[in-house]
Amino acid sequence: MNIRSNPDTTLPAVTTGPLPSSRKIYAVPDSAPDLRVPLREIILSEAASEPNLPVYDTSGPYTDPSVTIDVNAGLPRNRIAWVLERGGVEEYVGRDIKPEDNGNVGADKAAKAFTAHHKPLRGLDGHKITQLEFARAGIVTKEMIYVAERENLGRKVQLERAEAALADGESFGASVPAFITPEFVRDEIARGRAIIPCNINHAELEPMIIGRNFLTKINANIGNSAVTSSVEEEVDKMVWAIRWGADTVMDLSTGRNIHTTREWILRNSPVPIGTVPIYQALEKCNGDPVALTWELYKDTLIEQCEQGVDYFTIHAGVRLQYIHLTASRVTGIVSRGGSIMAKWCLAHHKESFLYTHFDEICDIMRKYDVSFSLGDGLRPGSIADANDRAQFAELETLGELTKIAWDKGCQVMIEGPGHVPMHKIKINMDKQLKECGEAPFYTLGPLTTDIAPGYDHITSGIGAAMIGWFGCAMLCYVTPKEHLGLPDRNDVKTGVITYKIAAHAADLAKGHPAAQLRDDALSRARFEFRWTDQFNLGLDPDTAKSFHDETLPKEAHKVAHFCSMCGPKFCSMKITQDVRDYAATLNDPATVGMTISGTIEDGMAQMSAKFKEMGGSVYLDAEKVKESNKALS
Amino acid sequence: MNIRSNPDTTLPAVTTGPLPSSRKIYAVPDSAPDLRVPLREIILSEAASEPNLPVYDTSGPYTDPSVTIDVNAGLPRNRIAWVLERGGVEEYVGRDIKPEDNGNVGADKAAKAFTAHHKPLRGLDGHKITQLEFARAGIVTKEMIYVAERENLGRKVQLERAEAALADGESFGASVPAFITPEFVRDEIARGRAIIPCNINHAELEPMIIGRNFLTKINANIGNSAVTSSVEEEVDKMVWAIRWGADTVMDLSTGRNIHTTREWILRNSPVPIGTVPIYQALEKCNGDPVALTWELYKDTLIEQCEQGVDYFTIHAGVRLQYIHLTASRVTGIVSRGGSIMAKWCLAHHKESFLYTHFDEICDIMRKYDVSFSLGDGLRPGSIADANDRAQFAELETLGELTKIAWDKGCQVMIEGPGHVPMHKIKINMDKQLKECGEAPFYTLGPLTTDIAPGYDHITSGIGAAMIGWFGCAMLCYVTPKEHLGLPDRNDVKTGVITYKIAAHAADLAKGHPAAQLRDDALSRARFEFRWTDQFNLGLDPDTAKSFHDETLPKEAHKVAHFCSMCGPKFCSMKITQDVRDYAATLNDPATVGMTISGTIEDGMAQMSAKFKEMGGSVYLDAEKVKESNKALS
Repeated sequence: MNIRSNPDTTLPAVTTGPLPSSRKIYAVPDSAPDLRVPLREIILSEAASEPNLPVYDTSGPYTDPSVTIDVNAGLPRNRIAWVLERGGVEEYVGRDIKPEDNGNVGADKAAKAFTAHHKPLRGLDGHKITQLEFARAGIVTKEMIYVAERENLGRKVQLERAEAALADGESFGASVPAFITPEFVRDEIARGRAIIPCNINHAELEPMIIGRNFLTKINANIGNSAVTSSVEEEVDKMVWAIRWGADTVMDLSTGRNIHTTREWILRNSPVPIGTVPIYQALEKCNGDPVALTWELYKDTLIEQCEQGVDYFTIHAGVRLQYIHLTASRVTGIVSRGGSIMAKWCLAHHKESFLYTHFDEICDIMRKYDVSFSLGDGLRPGSIADANDRAQFAELETLGELTKIAWDKGCQVMIEGPGHVPMHKIKINMDKQLKECGEAPFYTLGPLTTDIAPGYDHITSGIGAAMIGWFGCAMLCYVTPKEHLGLPDRNDVKTGVITYKIAAHAADLAKGHPAAQLRDDALSRARFEFRWTDQFNLGLDPDTAKSFHDETLPKEAHKVAHFCSMCGPKFCSMKITQDVRDYAATLNDPATVGMTISGTIEDGMAQMSAKFKEMGGSVYLDAEKVKESNKALS
Repeated sequence: MNIRSNPDTTLPAVTTGPLPSSRKIYAVPDSAPDLRVPLREIILSEAASEPNLPVYDTSGPYTDPSVTIDVNAGLPRNRIAWVLERGGVEEYVGRDIKPEDNGNVGADKAAKAFTAHHKPLRGLDGHKITQLEFARAGIVTKEMIYVAERENLGRKVQLERAEAALADGESFGASVPAFITPEFVRDEIARGRAIIPCNINHAELEPMIIGRNFLTKINANIGNSAVTSSVEEEVDKMVWAIRWGADTVMDLSTGRNIHTTREWILRNSPVPIGTVPIYQALEKCNGDPVALTWELYKDTLIEQCEQGVDYFTIHAGVRLQYIHLTASRVTGIVSRGGSIMAKWCLAHHKESFLYTHFDEICDIMRKYDVSFSLGDGLRPGSIADANDRAQFAELETLGELTKIAWDKGCQVMIEGPGHVPMHKIKINMDKQLKECGEAPFYTLGPLTTDIAPGYDHITSGIGAAMIGWFGCAMLCYVTPKEHLGLPDRNDVKTGVITYKIAAHAADLAKGHPAAQLRDDALSRARFEFRWTDQFNLGLDPDTAKSFHDETLPKEAHKVAHFCSMCGPKFCSMKITQDVRDYAATLNDPATVGMTISGTIEDGMAQMSAKFKEMGGSVYLDAEKVKESNKALS
């Protein structure tokens, strides 16, 4: 990996270069030869008697050595042509950037503005704009072709194997197909079961799809808080998060420089960016929830639509009449957006303006194809509060709002908890599917216990794997810093890897046709002592190699038929291979399908003698290995 | 925490002293006032309006400042009196220690022998020796009284609350009672549904129970391999593992000094120690599985029975006729013991001597009350091999052997996988319960995917939580080093904490009457911004505090009503508390059970005005906090 040192030190330095033994490849869909759909090919060692493995690649141009990265200029804006060629949009002079957009930051503390300015696009009345509208009209967009190709992970149609995988899994009623076609994508979007978050102004985007009949996705939250962090750190975190597999990134920045931070992130992000607009709206009224107004909020929506944000978390389900339901909770309201709106509702004794103006919100978002992520402002914040009436009352309202947004032509997903013990997780998934007409579910964890601050990536990774299996479409990561502080770069990586594990475990359990290919490739590498392949096929080759190197650092150990865990004499894989090799030399079917039977006694006696003969020679000398390590260290 | 520096540097240095804000307390059972059952009391801050929280304590005398720890002398041998007073045992001159017991280690590499020598005890013919025999005879032993007290976590009988918790959980047919009595313990042991691993020669033991109607337990594997590690490191790892919550420890040492390492561990261990005797037997024939004999193995069993090992993993289910079933596996046989026995069976073309001599093995183990941990030598080593015929054929044989061992009066648990995707986990649990007559299940993970070497504590923590919920009685930890190298001290801690999370999440989901008390206490601390209480109530107070200190290091921040994650303006818990406090001042029931209704409009208008008045004053100034941090760092 190369850390790019930027000559201008005020600009973000980001990590570029391919992952170990990987190269970027691009698939070209038959139906759209101008598209280049990225994949990462993991290159196996010469000892491998199998092809290289293509895997899903969220990392964007940063891992393509042929692309020159200039954070100052942003990524290529390829997708603008797709939007323009289908028409129905206009370029216009966007809203001016005002001092309050950046929290009235003083000149001394203002972050450097992003250099380039792009005029925004918006939809014209009477024209189709959103992916949902195109899908319903039977039109397959380039975005749909792109994600179809991407979801197949570079494999060709192999119906028999794919169907066997599906039959072996348990998907709880999902309809994962053996192979993803653009038409399948279109159909799922038309039914509201999947979304492609893709603001027409986010031209740097490599489209991806969220829905339970596709690969399970993960989101990484970044963003500064009022207490710590900077623009540079946040852009770096975004690039770092997608390097390890984040499918979308939410910029949850608060405090000053909020507009500028988001601009830098968007112009450099190949993945969808989500935000919670109420955070910025609150900055515009100096942090006083009571002073929030619909006009301030609307202004913020338009500002962020023009920038290119792909999905908005909107807590429109926090209704005045539900707030008292949280009164007896152990941890009250734990959603930032939820608590802000609760305070507003109570202070004014009015229904939430997000609820009363929901129609208008839809009309704005539709013009830019910004997807809804209907926020769960009343999600539980502790095991004690899971699945209570407040939570489910809000979920029912989110179902009602889903249908309104769909009628308006908007794409929708639904946010979910939070903190839920294992036995109450499936109830959440089932109720969400029922109330929200199978709109994609997007949950935060859930944490399955509250007793491990510092390890909430794990308490929640358990719940995330389970709810992903049950049908959740996207899992919002939780880092080790959850409840304790703002995650740094290392926390972001740990959170992303943990959630890639959860998402992949879910895909495996659902029987996703391509999921087990990677497990099997890695298992074969492990069994055949191709250590380097084992590292490189894993989610984090750097960490795997460094752990191995701690005890067996020499290059020769990368082909050794053992590791330091058991040592050479006790390596079960080695012994098993000895057994197999030996059985093969006998070339006698009876040695494989062996039973205790007199008829093959002669063969067995011969086998027995040969084994004795092999004796000690099949093992390496452990003490010698130890000495050689000592000499080296 | 204090790191004990031993004046004699050739002896192990171990970690002593209480955990942060904790003190050791001892409960005295009504029915045995001479027993002192350890608990750890977490002392809450003065701001807490609730009592201190007692939690299960595996750490032994090491965390009791009133006990002087001398690793050279070993722990007090309190339990010897319990064994002697019930009679039926004899002291005798044990087997001599031979050079091959320590792998014929040369004088230059020999570890220092443990100083004290204790003559072993063994059962006399015609007398009851094992907990199973006593239980069946209706006799409640001190061990049973001890574990009953321990399992209740210091709580009194509160039937109503306990029954509500049980009713709220889903235990899949377990029979967890509202309160544990010694008679319940006796009955569960008599039925074979639980075991107390307690060799009569492990007099340092603080007894514990393993069974699905008790708290879910975890095991930590330690032990040197031929390539790395030393006696000192292993004793330190044992003490370190139990400090963080390991309920039992397996010494999986191989290589030289194997007898001496085990002696040091046993004499200093308050938790049950398990081993895999075939590892040492193999050392006695220079690592050649083909040269293994029943006599060598039997000699090893007696050696370890006399030392005080509490449970033996015995791979007696790896039968000759099953070995060919592994031929087409992706990863063959991955159990060390399983592969050793497979090689022996094939080389000799004979049934495994562990199977043919099973009766004799029972007779030996019964005399010392060593529990069986029937090994799963044919467990899957990859997702591809999960739940295959080889695995389940062996499990059926383990069921057959369970009944033989029970007939002989031995306590039994059953080992399980390994590598299993989520949707195939419950099948394992259900089949084990059926085949093995509800004998406790003890699984390694299982790992739910193979694609994350370096993170297998997480891939397996997911599976462990699930199988614990489904009924698994003990979860064998997996560390981040799994498949890559021998775990060090940090890996041991990470593995233990991860598995404490899994076990606790399982207990919560089962509805264990006492499990949620800790979650609720921590959640209340979190909501009330008692930061120090939040850290101390967690599984790893040191890590939680250090994460918090990274961004808010000052003592004043330990009472701040926000953290660096969201900052003061966006802290949902703060806002919620503001809302509640405000509602409380109105002293009007309508403000809690508020609805949109004209009748309380006046109250609401008043509320609205007051909220406006509170305005900006309820928030701390984020920028000021940031500055103060900068000044400090």
